[in-house]
Amino acid sequence: MKIALDAMGGDFAPDSTVKGAGLAAKELPEGVTLVLIGDENVINGKLEEFNINESNIEVFHASDVIDMGEHPTKALSQKPEASIPVGFGLLKKGLVNAFASAGNTGAMHVGAMFTIKTIEGIIRPGIAGFMPKEAGGFGVIMDVGANADCKPDVLHQFGQIASLYAKHVFEIEKPKVGLMNLGEEEQKGTLLTQAAHQLFKLDKSLNFIGNIEGRDLFNDKADVIVCDGFTGNVILKMAESFFDMLQTRNIKDPYFDRFNYEAIGGSPILGVNGNVVIGHGVSSPEAIKNMLLLSLKMAEANIHLKIKEKIGE
Amino acid sequence: MKIALDAMGGDFAPDSTVKGAGLAAKELPEGVTLVLIGDENVINGKLEEFNINESNIEVFHASDVIDMGEHPTKALSQKPEASIPVGFGLLKKGLVNAFASAGNTGAMHVGAMFTIKTIEGIIRPGIAGFMPKEAGGFGVIMDVGANADCKPDVLHQFGQIASLYAKHVFEIEKPKVGLMNLGEEEQKGTLLTQAAHQLFKLDKSLNFIGNIEGRDLFNDKADVIVCDGFTGNVILKMAESFFDMLQTRNIKDPYFDRFNYEAIGGSPILGVNGNVVIGHGVSSPEAIKNMLLLSLKMAEANIHLKIKEKIGE
Repeated sequence: MKIALDAMGGDFAPDSTVKGAGLAAKELPEGVTLVLIGDENVINGKLEEFNINESNIEVFHASDVIDMGEHPTKALSQKPEASIPVGFGLLKKGLVNAFASAGNTGAMHVGAMFTIKTIEGIIRPGIAGFMPKEAGGFGVIMDVGANADCKPDVLHQFGQIASLYAKHVFEIEKPKVGLMNLGEEEQKGTLLTQAAHQLFKLDKSLNFIGNIEGRDLFNDKADVIVCDGFTGNVILKMAESFFDMLQTRNIKDPYFDRFNYEAIGGSPILGVNGNVVIGHGVSSPEAIKNMLLLSLKMAEANIHLKIKEKIGE
Repeated sequence: MKIALDAMGGDFAPDSTVKGAGLAAKELPEGVTLVLIGDENVINGKLEEFNINESNIEVFHASDVIDMGEHPTKALSQKPEASIPVGFGLLKKGLVNAFASAGNTGAMHVGAMFTIKTIEGIIRPGIAGFMPKEAGGFGVIMDVGANADCKPDVLHQFGQIASLYAKHVFEIEKPKVGLMNLGEEEQKGTLLTQAAHQLFKLDKSLNFIGNIEGRDLFNDKADVIVCDGFTGNVILKMAESFFDMLQTRNIKDPYFDRFNYEAIGGSPILGVNGNVVIGHGVSSPEAIKNMLLLSLKMAEANIHLKIKEKIGE
């Protein structure tokens, strides 16, 4: 099994990515190889500099880089030899089992849609985020920003997709699916959430527990939190700001420490034909390591195929 | 000046309300009277029981009570002698300058709309919430739940209304108005926020600073945060849950203590012909006290008239 990393992606790449790969390499099970994509001279230089000589690290040359601020579509068409399109190329050919990058988020998103493409039958791929639960583990929240405006059937599919993710990647047998809303009663909410609620109610294949509220993100009510990408994005960034404010005040707590983006390290794009994870631009080596371990878990679970089998057409 | 309190409203009323009024009475400037609305025998009994004999507390009899779980419209039509409709009656006649209740939120909302009514020219009244700012003070966020689905012109008006509130009640000279969004760039977001952004850009009477994100709720970017009631409600409840989780872990911090709903005590309904504040059902005496002081501030600022003059037709 091979997990590919965009070694050039992220504000602190290639130092952070190469160091992170070094950390991950020590934790990988036998038979798993990391593939670092980027300028081979640069990467080899960094591997040497940081004294990383794990045999489960390979380098795959990509001569170009898409910068953080570049326009995704333009950059992808103008720089086919950059690490992101090269990574998607490997993923498409089945030469790697997952591809992760802390680089240009838009390029990762567009690259996924146009290279490995949306699974047939999936209306809109989305990005999943993770909410640390007080009782342990993480809840899956989808979408967290790929789709600002959603239709009811898109929300319903997010519930199906994220439910499969919680089941196969987080090993929760019957994930409880909650619809983010402003009240528990089914007639509450926007026209969107009211209509989505009815779709969820009719779907007996899901463990739909009804509406949840902003106060339920961290409790045990739901393992899967369904919302449009606008709401999910506000939630995710607000949770990040809480963690930052705790850090500023030097408040340490084992639970709140799991709000650190580094704890999970990345957000998967779900609904495309491959396992893709996007990391935070500021990713540290620790974050890169955890993003790689998450990518491995997704590859082991074959999550994109599970989604294709169960929801695709 | 008279500030009316629904003495029968709230999970712990009349104990919490009478005690809270007693606390507030000690802090009121000369010339301000509290009017406790409800069963006069019950209220007088409680005033005696708690040894409250402030001369700036009056009792106004209301023979009935709308319970927390009652259907607002039905209850208001069937119980005209209940404390909530009696309170709105006094407000409408100008016999009190503000009316606050921690009772049935729906009845307060519907009562406001049908008794004192929406200010002409206001498309939709909304409910404002408050976000403790790291730099001190509170940001005003509107709407926090009255209007789940909003049109762009409604968001624009929320910005105007909340801006007047920040100016006249919180005494911020040129309140910075931010539009809650998932990215800073003006083309980002939902169709709603994209369109609203353009309306704000055209309105030179506001100090519009552009889009803000979920991470900006507590920093100094905006004094006024504009969003639809769905988003605002999720934000408000999520912030409450953070405070609760900190409490559970016994983490005390002067900044985070201001996340306690008691610190402000209530949420104003803005855009109606009178000063109305809704409190949390679980309101403690401290929360009731602060809700009354907030109501007084609103009455002193004559905020409903400011809104009528500046935005109404």
